[in-house]
Amino acid sequence: MKMLYEGKAKQVFLTDKEGEYIVHFKDDATAFNGVKKEKITGKGELNNAISSLIFEMLEKEGIKTHFIKKINSNDMLVKKVNILPLEVIIRNLSAGSLSKRLGLEEGIEFEEPVFELCYKRDDLADPIINDDHAVILGLASRVEIEQIKKETLKINELLKTFFRKANLRLIDFKIEYGRTDDGELLLADEVSPDTCRLWDIHTNEKMDKDRFRRDLGSVIEAYQEVLERIK
Amino acid sequence: MKMLYEGKAKQVFLTDKEGEYIVHFKDDATAFNGVKKEKITGKGELNNAISSLIFEMLEKEGIKTHFIKKINSNDMLVKKVNILPLEVIIRNLSAGSLSKRLGLEEGIEFEEPVFELCYKRDDLADPIINDDHAVILGLASRVEIEQIKKETLKINELLKTFFRKANLRLIDFKIEYGRTDDGELLLADEVSPDTCRLWDIHTNEKMDKDRFRRDLGSVIEAYQEVLERIK
Ligand SMILES: Nc1ncnc2c1ncn2[C@@H]1O[C@H](COP(=O)(O)OP(=O)(O)OP(=O)(O)O)[C@@H](O)[C@H]1O
Ligand SMILES: Nc1ncnc2c1ncn2[C@@H]1O[C@H](COP(=O)(O)OP(=O)(O)OP(=O)(O)O)[C@@H](O)[C@H]1O
Ligand SMILES: [Mg+2]
Ligand SMILES: [Mg+2]
Repeated sequence: MKMLYEGKAKQVFLTDKEGEYIVHFKDDATAFNGVKKEKITGKGELNNAISSLIFEMLEKEGIKTHFIKKINSNDMLVKKVNILPLEVIIRNLSAGSLSKRLGLEEGIEFEEPVFELCYKRDDLADPIINDDHAVILGLASRVEIEQIKKETLKINELLKTFFRKANLRLIDFKIEYGRTDDGELLLADEVSPDTCRLWDIHTNEKMDKDRFRRDLGSVIEAYQEVLERIK
Repeated sequence: MKMLYEGKAKQVFLTDKEGEYIVHFKDDATAFNGVKKEKITGKGELNNAISSLIFEMLEKEGIKTHFIKKINSNDMLVKKVNILPLEVIIRNLSAGSLSKRLGLEEGIEFEEPVFELCYKRDDLADPIINDDHAVILGLASRVEIEQIKKETLKINELLKTFFRKANLRLIDFKIEYGRTDDGELLLADEVSPDTCRLWDIHTNEKMDKDRFRRDLGSVIEAYQEVLERIK
């Protein structure tokens, strides 16, 4: 199989079917724009399993995603899209870069979800942008941005409910959208503890990539626990 | 007169009339969040004169401002407001921090003006924010932000026309709004070469604070030329 792209956490492969790719989840963990790196055995398998369950749930709820099926422990079959160079973020509670940038302590619940866009450009460290910037940079049209905002808020509600049933609180998450050759927008990439902040609903224990970012230990155990709870 | 506040470029004084302040324009120039500092003799007088002419023009065009009158070389009488901790920015062409953040060369003309908000917090280096952040930080209501956006786009059109007549191209500008005790929003602070990027329409020569920021020399001569041209 021809590898098209190798990212920090995943590889993308061509298949013999036009319009379908395979996403391979690696065991690599990175943080702080690639400065911190580590191999975490088992992470790829867990993220593939968790992402697959979440894409299935979202599809059932009417969200259009790139997900076709999970094909083995570390691989997912997906629809080929052109990824929009946008990190689309929703925040339900303050944490991470928002807390740092705006001088807010972590864990403050917002009255409404906060919608953020970042420009996916590693060389610029993924700067935060607003709708006008996205348009002048040609990343998405005004109409697409409105569509993305609406869809992402809907996904947030579905994910909040989904994780609440697993006794997890959804603090924030980052997703990516892609366009099919027909121009249809699909939710793509992954939805996993690498891309969501999840806190235990009772103890507020972090069950996500912050365990790696902040050297809290038991990274794989936390991801494993997330999978067990949502299964 | 009791000084209420000393900023980097201006001082604010109480008057004996409730609801009126005096803004005193100093000769101090600062850049890069106060790291670069210099005294530029004559700058205060020029900025007061330029700001006064601009506020008068804007008032005549129906914009509500804090401006009452210019009272002497360096002092302006204004209505007292509570300043919203927001830097409200319009960009017609790429320059400065936008170019740096988004990896765009300077001088690209946008199809539509780009609207930006920064959170006025020196200790956080005035981070860029979006509408949602402004709301959750309690800086302004959703309705006020929409009002500010509309008003600022109107001000942009008026300023563009005003400066074009003076053979100056308005690249971008930063303004501040305040609330009167009745909750009315007024354009406040200043509008000057300290807060606008102005390029000569024929030569693209910089006629604004970038001359100071970038050590281009002839700062005061440029400000003087701006005043002569708009008079
Ligand atoms: N359905 C899809 N079609 C095409 N590309 C996809 C699809 N889903 C995800 N991708 C892309 O595949 C890559 C996955 O790799 P990974 O997430 O490891 O990248 P990364 O290191 O995060 O870098 P970046 O996301 O900035 O490219 C990403 O570029 C992602 O946008
Ligand atoms: N009409 C007004 N009523 C009350 N305050 C005002 C009014 N107009 C301007 N101000 C405030 O007066 C101060 C002017 O000082 P200056 O512009 O030098 O401050 P600065 O160093 O830029 O710091 P900052 O603007 O971050 O407070 C600013 O804080 C500005 O917001
Ligand atoms: Mg990625
Ligand atoms: Mg100021």
